[in-house]
Amino acid sequence: MAKCLVTGGAGFIGSHVAEDLLKAGHTVTVLDDLSGGFEDNVPAGAKFVKGSVTDAALVNGLFAEGKFEHVFHLAAYAAEGLSHFIRKFNYENNLIGSVNLVNASVNNGVKCFVFTSSIAVYGAGQLPLTEDMAPMPEDPYGASKLAVEHDLHAAQKMFGLDFVVFRPHNVYGERQNIGDRYRNVAGIFMNQILLGQPMSIFGDGEQTRAFTYIKDVSPIIADSAFRPEAYNQVFNIGSEQPFTVNELAERVREAMGAPAHPIKHLEARNEVVHAFSSHDRLKKVFGYTPKYGLAEGVQAMADWAKKAGSRASTEFGNIEIERNLPPSWRKKA
Amino acid sequence: MAKCLVTGGAGFIGSHVAEDLLKAGHTVTVLDDLSGGFEDNVPAGAKFVKGSVTDAALVNGLFAEGKFEHVFHLAAYAAEGLSHFIRKFNYENNLIGSVNLVNASVNNGVKCFVFTSSIAVYGAGQLPLTEDMAPMPEDPYGASKLAVEHDLHAAQKMFGLDFVVFRPHNVYGERQNIGDRYRNVAGIFMNQILLGQPMSIFGDGEQTRAFTYIKDVSPIIADSAFRPEAYNQVFNIGSEQPFTVNELAERVREAMGAPAHPIKHLEARNEVVHAFSSHDRLKKVFGYTPKYGLAEGVQAMADWAKKAGSRASTEFGNIEIERNLPPSWRKKA
Repeated sequence: MAKCLVTGGAGFIGSHVAEDLLKAGHTVTVLDDLSGGFEDNVPAGAKFVKGSVTDAALVNGLFAEGKFEHVFHLAAYAAEGLSHFIRKFNYENNLIGSVNLVNASVNNGVKCFVFTSSIAVYGAGQLPLTEDMAPMPEDPYGASKLAVEHDLHAAQKMFGLDFVVFRPHNVYGERQNIGDRYRNVAGIFMNQILLGQPMSIFGDGEQTRAFTYIKDVSPIIADSAFRPEAYNQVFNIGSEQPFTVNELAERVREAMGAPAHPIKHLEARNEVVHAFSSHDRLKKVFGYTPKYGLAEGVQAMADWAKKAGSRASTEFGNIEIERNLPPSWRKKA
Repeated sequence: MAKCLVTGGAGFIGSHVAEDLLKAGHTVTVLDDLSGGFEDNVPAGAKFVKGSVTDAALVNGLFAEGKFEHVFHLAAYAAEGLSHFIRKFNYENNLIGSVNLVNASVNNGVKCFVFTSSIAVYGAGQLPLTEDMAPMPEDPYGASKLAVEHDLHAAQKMFGLDFVVFRPHNVYGERQNIGDRYRNVAGIFMNQILLGQPMSIFGDGEQTRAFTYIKDVSPIIADSAFRPEAYNQVFNIGSEQPFTVNELAERVREAMGAPAHPIKHLEARNEVVHAFSSHDRLKKVFGYTPKYGLAEGVQAMADWAKKAGSRASTEFGNIEIERNLPPSWRKKA
């Protein structure tokens, strides 16, 4: 029974990790600023603290009081494509926020720091992406995630703070913020169907991703702090099988019961065309095989989305660079 | 005749770059917060603005007004060893500050962004360090510099902002802040001699570095923005020949006219034991060969230091992690 902090625990992956930890009998404090999450995502039994990881004083106070043994750091603004246009916000949120947690973890003797990085650290690497590859991120989001990974390696060497880093990819499922129009294509599709808008696809839709159902991801992340054999390693995590965005759109239309819902192709944006990862290391250490196929996962998410209803499309307030911003991301006002 | 911004232009390398640019007939604005630099380092003829690169509003105003064609970004807090203990400060100063400049450069149509990174990005790589190696920084300073490099690559691809990245190593010379007790061993030695204190060496002093005289570095950096053949490349820059810290101490004692000045060995700290770089790419593009040997460079610096006199040892105010901080870096109070 360990005392655990889950940052971003009112968000998508974070709320599932918090739930998995509670199920295993641990004590959970959730820290979330509700910028992308919702308080009703916080699982019953967790203590909820509203606040940002970028608030160093809050973080330090929370650690002093909470005596956490393990930190699961999932708070992030994970809009990879948008990060080009919100560079400063990206680094403050994703890097400075993480560094506040690393400082507090070192100063308060945390045992294991679990961090969700991203396959964005790889850039356009040779496929399949393996953890031993030299990362070369191609956007500020990937650069910030990689810097945190480097910082964790340094903190481990200098202070003995053990860590586990996950690089998940294309995770979808219940409790995803389907109102975020900058990220998470499955949720965007479902929200568009619920709102009677055409489903928007950047480019021809033949870009591929190995879409991954949340229940193939969160239990591993929650378990990792209790597996010393995983310490101080980096793991890709997610499904093996790539699908095109067009195929995903098809699945979503079926699962939502809207097989003829219109699709609108937008101008292609600057993004990696194909991405899939090797999970050999994860299988070796965690004995992991994904259990959920695309049809099953999308159906579960669609059932939830239909019940939960559409979300108002959130708009990012403070664009730092307007140049080359995809027209669909521009302010409506 | 180009309009140039030099950040950190009241500091060591920055003031030399500003001077070289003025000599070549360009217009120079210096932005420096004087945290490590001194106003009297700013060369005559340059416009001086006191302020920090971390102040986005100031940076944006300066760019709007200055219509800079080239940005030479040398402002940094370059205390690699200390960066473990001032993580947040390190990233705010070295990364967020840089990102403010990248944003402003994109938004104001800057032609070339020249950035001084560091060999700290390599970590304990195989020697000699070459630019094609996969970087693996081992301290927050190196992680922040590498993140800026990645950010510049991304900005080039997305917005066409050309860049030149330099990874200098172990630069010493006139106008270095010899009062900074956390960095720059040649300056620390000279200040200790001037103050009648023993020269302090971490560990046995057999760690090697290819110490590099400033006049082998700054002219290349100043010239790079005007050489399109250098654009969007990363260059190691510095001397070829490694010396031990003990050998440097010997040279400094001789140049300062204090051949028997006492030396005190401190406990070894966590640092790379040997470091030297390949400069093949630099030679190819810039036709560069270092002109100054160690004896000559150290003598020039020592002559300046004796004339300028000792500097009060500055103390870094806000240590974030006290654990494992070398005793000699602890607060005196």
